[in-house]
Amino acid sequence: MSGNTIGKLFQVTTFGESHGLSLGCIIDGTPPGMKITELDLQKELDRRRPGKSKYTTPRSELDRVIILSGTFQGITTGTSIGLITHNTDQRPNDYTNIQTLFRPGHADYTYQKKYGIRDPRGGGRSSARETVMRVAAGAIAKKYLYLNYGILIRGYLEQIGNIFCKLETWDEVEKNPFFCPDVTKLSKIEKLIRTLKKEGDSIGAKIVIIAEKVPIGLGEPVFDRLDADLAHGLMSINAVKGVEIGDGFSVINQKGSQNRDEMTKNGFSSNHSGGILGGISNGEKIVAKIALKPTSSIKKVGKTIDHDGKENDIITLGRHDPCVGLRAVPIAESMMAITIMDHLLRYRAQCGKL
Amino acid sequence: MSGNTIGKLFQVTTFGESHGLSLGCIIDGTPPGMKITELDLQKELDRRRPGKSKYTTPRSELDRVIILSGTFQGITTGTSIGLITHNTDQRPNDYTNIQTLFRPGHADYTYQKKYGIRDPRGGGRSSARETVMRVAAGAIAKKYLYLNYGILIRGYLEQIGNIFCKLETWDEVEKNPFFCPDVTKLSKIEKLIRTLKKEGDSIGAKIVIIAEKVPIGLGEPVFDRLDADLAHGLMSINAVKGVEIGDGFSVINQKGSQNRDEMTKNGFSSNHSGGILGGISNGEKIVAKIALKPTSSIKKVGKTIDHDGKENDIITLGRHDPCVGLRAVPIAESMMAITIMDHLLRYRAQCGKL
Amino acid sequence: MSGNTIGKLFQVTTFGESHGLSLGCIIDGTPPGMKITELDLQKELDRRRPGKSKYTTPRSELDRVIILSGTFQGITTGTSIGLITHNTDQRPNDYTNIQTLFRPGHADYTYQKKYGIRDPRGGGRSSARETVMRVAAGAIAKKYLYLNYGILIRGYLEQIGNIFCKLETWDEVEKNPFFCPDVTKLSKIEKLIRTLKKEGDSIGAKIVIIAEKVPIGLGEPVFDRLDADLAHGLMSINAVKGVEIGDGFSVINQKGSQNRDEMTKNGFSSNHSGGILGGISNGEKIVAKIALKPTSSIKKVGKTIDHDGKENDIITLGRHDPCVGLRAVPIAESMMAITIMDHLLRYRAQCGKL
Amino acid sequence: MSGNTIGKLFQVTTFGESHGLSLGCIIDGTPPGMKITELDLQKELDRRRPGKSKYTTPRSELDRVIILSGTFQGITTGTSIGLITHNTDQRPNDYTNIQTLFRPGHADYTYQKKYGIRDPRGGGRSSARETVMRVAAGAIAKKYLYLNYGILIRGYLEQIGNIFCKLETWDEVEKNPFFCPDVTKLSKIEKLIRTLKKEGDSIGAKIVIIAEKVPIGLGEPVFDRLDADLAHGLMSINAVKGVEIGDGFSVINQKGSQNRDEMTKNGFSSNHSGGILGGISNGEKIVAKIALKPTSSIKKVGKTIDHDGKENDIITLGRHDPCVGLRAVPIAESMMAITIMDHLLRYRAQCGKL
Repeated sequence: MSGNTIGKLFQVTTFGESHGLSLGCIIDGTPPGMKITELDLQKELDRRRPGKSKYTTPRSELDRVIILSGTFQGITTGTSIGLITHNTDQRPNDYTNIQTLFRPGHADYTYQKKYGIRDPRGGGRSSARETVMRVAAGAIAKKYLYLNYGILIRGYLEQIGNIFCKLETWDEVEKNPFFCPDVTKLSKIEKLIRTLKKEGDSIGAKIVIIAEKVPIGLGEPVFDRLDADLAHGLMSINAVKGVEIGDGFSVINQKGSQNRDEMTKNGFSSNHSGGILGGISNGEKIVAKIALKPTSSIKKVGKTIDHDGKENDIITLGRHDPCVGLRAVPIAESMMAITIMDHLLRYRAQCGKL
Repeated sequence: MSGNTIGKLFQVTTFGESHGLSLGCIIDGTPPGMKITELDLQKELDRRRPGKSKYTTPRSELDRVIILSGTFQGITTGTSIGLITHNTDQRPNDYTNIQTLFRPGHADYTYQKKYGIRDPRGGGRSSARETVMRVAAGAIAKKYLYLNYGILIRGYLEQIGNIFCKLETWDEVEKNPFFCPDVTKLSKIEKLIRTLKKEGDSIGAKIVIIAEKVPIGLGEPVFDRLDADLAHGLMSINAVKGVEIGDGFSVINQKGSQNRDEMTKNGFSSNHSGGILGGISNGEKIVAKIALKPTSSIKKVGKTIDHDGKENDIITLGRHDPCVGLRAVPIAESMMAITIMDHLLRYRAQCGKL
Repeated sequence: MSGNTIGKLFQVTTFGESHGLSLGCIIDGTPPGMKITELDLQKELDRRRPGKSKYTTPRSELDRVIILSGTFQGITTGTSIGLITHNTDQRPNDYTNIQTLFRPGHADYTYQKKYGIRDPRGGGRSSARETVMRVAAGAIAKKYLYLNYGILIRGYLEQIGNIFCKLETWDEVEKNPFFCPDVTKLSKIEKLIRTLKKEGDSIGAKIVIIAEKVPIGLGEPVFDRLDADLAHGLMSINAVKGVEIGDGFSVINQKGSQNRDEMTKNGFSSNHSGGILGGISNGEKIVAKIALKPTSSIKKVGKTIDHDGKENDIITLGRHDPCVGLRAVPIAESMMAITIMDHLLRYRAQCGKL
Repeated sequence: MSGNTIGKLFQVTTFGESHGLSLGCIIDGTPPGMKITELDLQKELDRRRPGKSKYTTPRSELDRVIILSGTFQGITTGTSIGLITHNTDQRPNDYTNIQTLFRPGHADYTYQKKYGIRDPRGGGRSSARETVMRVAAGAIAKKYLYLNYGILIRGYLEQIGNIFCKLETWDEVEKNPFFCPDVTKLSKIEKLIRTLKKEGDSIGAKIVIIAEKVPIGLGEPVFDRLDADLAHGLMSINAVKGVEIGDGFSVINQKGSQNRDEMTKNGFSSNHSGGILGGISNGEKIVAKIALKPTSSIKKVGKTIDHDGKENDIITLGRHDPCVGLRAVPIAESMMAITIMDHLLRYRAQCGKL
């Protein structure tokens, strides 16, 4: 029940620090008989990998994941699956100069105060590097959901700074390093990133995650609603400061007559709810949106204090994304996949075959 | 691990339907030696009670809560606390005509499809009436947090439709039925509600919940972050479609240099983070905001289908709020109180006395 | 995750003290569509009821259980089930004289030291009366398992003091107040009880619980094995000091060639394992045995101390069984039913329809 | 909540098969600031290591454990601890000939039926080799409990076959490969083992585990009693078929006047309860005893069936202990340490500093 586990039936427990020896996780509850290889995981890991393009951190981790247990001859056996990836491109020295400084916007301060000790190398456990294992575990959930239920989980960049990207088709999303569906915005985004790098600054972003073909009935009222668990999973991603389901905050100025999704014999006439009614999936697309804050590790001088409370200026060296949102899509997809997988198993437990 | 429990160390499990005999809950993990009486709970229940004003549903439940166990001579003993309240003003007949119709925007459809059966009387378990026990349990958490740590958890209405309410002081919040901090907007809101009632329509709202004096160190990375658990708790409230921590969605267009909260020897210079860094409280005010959709139970004719898929028009009779957000403040405060209480106990377990 | 909940998918949470207002529980995870009435529960409660015979405590509770939620027109809806029973025959005054004395063999001392406060009336939460709700919840599990899988869970008295009862048939078990299968021993047992009552003393007992027709595959290695969870559930019953699966402690002097259950095309040739291999049910009868200590509440003078550490003699008034084991059968059956039910749902989650 | 995790606050999740690449675990909830090195773990692992003596399986695994995360400069940081050990001495070929045969007394049959697939190499996940990580995790709990509370957890062999070993002093226990406290029985035991090896047979054993200086107050009624959780942890060890607390099964023929532990101002006059009253530790020694069945892997011909139900004779090759009990002591100590550690943290959460 400690903080490093998510899910109740499809349960993922992770470990590892940014500049430690390895990152790993244990996945418990995977149904037996599923074909799963390291390639299935690698495909997803490569989508989030740093150094993927000149627009993200140049840290070049190969992130080779190894399946240590839980499969026999490439088939899941129903026992716990151990995954590991070794940190190869460690540069702890980048951080020695700030070991006793609290980087503004980072968890340095809260980890130090909570635990009385912290791994200062790249933020240790609080680094976004921790998300590698979320993506590896998510890949297993994604594959299972797709193969057995045709559930398709995809995400894209809807906004970065004040640039809005419209989704016409999914074709472009995987063709550019921004997961941007809107080709007409690519040059704008590239220009923005270049400018930010020059300024040594960063920017926020908004990501949309959509799950299609989710069966009706997933979600357990009153507390473990599907939307509540999605909010938990998505808000647990570094830098996320807001979560919306369906129309999200735009419902504030909507009327009931306009917001409620009416039904005809052909199904729902609209999807303001984002595919969830009373905490249970209704068969429509599940739509979740998240806001990611701008990277706090920037080269602009900032004011902070050290462990003794002494004031000090700080410039964050190391290799960082000007927009963490740009790599958040595979991570957010994974959290949605893990959550839906968990609720699918929970449905089967109480309500039988799906 | 089923859906009707929230919290891991301060654990609240609830039961009860809108028009059943009773609603109740069991609270497990309450520290012993705390003075708690039914009055403590009643005070909070009265704040959410329907029929409180002409602006909310006229259903007039007294919501008298009884403490059935867990205390001896008014002091908690550390054993599980049983609470119950009996439904007195049941009017199941209001619903007989729609027993086989799926009310748009309601959980009727998803409950029926998931479970193959549902209690149609007022939405049964999916009714907002379920939140009575959240408030009762929250009252215990609130009292404990305040008495032992001076933690103060309060909320107010920030927006209803396109009316924005600014918080200058907390003085007005409890003096009007809307939890509105801004007297200059009261007449506007009253007018809006009257119009909606005439139209038989409803409207959305935005609520802000703030926790003050929360100790540094609450929250368990990487999954059970304080913000992630708050998102879970708040999103589990009926009608909530969005959750923000701190600056929430406005971070999308912020730069890192502007968003990161710098530190001086006097503490943080700003609180864009909403009091949470890396999923752990940093000693600043915890600020969460939620969006509530407009009530789906409205008198305007709507299109729907029945259990056999036959199309049908529907008008929701029964007694309903034109804006569920108006009564959401005590409920949202309770979810925040339960979440903070839970993490306070978790802190003590791993990191010792607080 | 606090101590008053058992089960992970079929989850039972209880509350209530021996001389409080009521005892109750919430059952979460019950499959929908099951016919369940208060009579189903009453039948089982009556089997454990005190005052059932002159051989058990004369306290005459009717133990009328009320279903407060979770069913609609007598059918489970899949929502949480609330149960309650009110204490009618309270005699707190029986205990006023020992409010500050620690009864030897009782939890008075440990509750006081752990919580700094306790409900002294009849042991409060630590009273065997708490088991009423175990039986009520167990009745639902029992009925579901029998109706849907033909699983039959029964128990009997195997030993009391040095009187051994052999199981030839189940016919007699429910015909006498001792759950004794062996008519030839009834008079011996009656004589023993009478003597003990005269002496104001008590005696221990051994109970056997058997589950038939349990499907192959229940149990989740490596920690949540079926036998491990059974041991947990059975050891959690008041006065239980030992648990055996299959041959139990007699395996110590067995050889592997004699203990391992060989297989032929007709199945297992023996059942030394008690129906569980590697923590998973193997289709044979599940056999568990428990040892219950003699009632600690006896009329014989005993030495103890009070809250101030002052030595004192004690005689336990109040109404007590000379052998708690005599009423333990329905309770132990219930714990086995709850455990098997939980694992059945867990099986369905991971391995699909059963 | 799946089966490969034990503990609620001090939570251990394991993975790994007998002849897979590696075995590992994640420990979550360890208090920060504790000095822990690989040597601390190695010391305990060496106590259970196979090939330790000619009386146990000759499989010679070095079982070198590596700490992958959760510490910084040898101090725990409060984040999840990842441990791994690589299988070096794999001999899967020993098992190829029995890939389709169900070894009697083993989990082959139940794993195959439950999951539809299994790792046949040495029993895969069901092998006693899985316990390596229990011991590694237990070592951390043991060290924490001893350093911070002086809690000492030790075990010894009380019986093997019909040879009884009396504990006079602890001096001898670690000096012989049997954890036998009684030097006068060593030659008898050696002779027994030699005979069994010649016969190709095996024998059962009884182990006693004692925890000293456990604070009063650990254990959470009514379900998560300390004894119930100990029973769970101990029964989850391979080959364990019975668990006793204190006097265990001998209470059946005890009278209340003899069993109840009376108190004087100097404390308890006896410890029939095994240090637990009402599920809560009472400050006395915690005494648990377990029965382990004889190894099922023996060279004597046995009858079994294959995957197609065809009857077949079987002789288990591979390297096996004639008595699994001989290596069970460190494993059982670890389960007790993990359970006590878990409850110690739970105590702190609800009742404050200990």
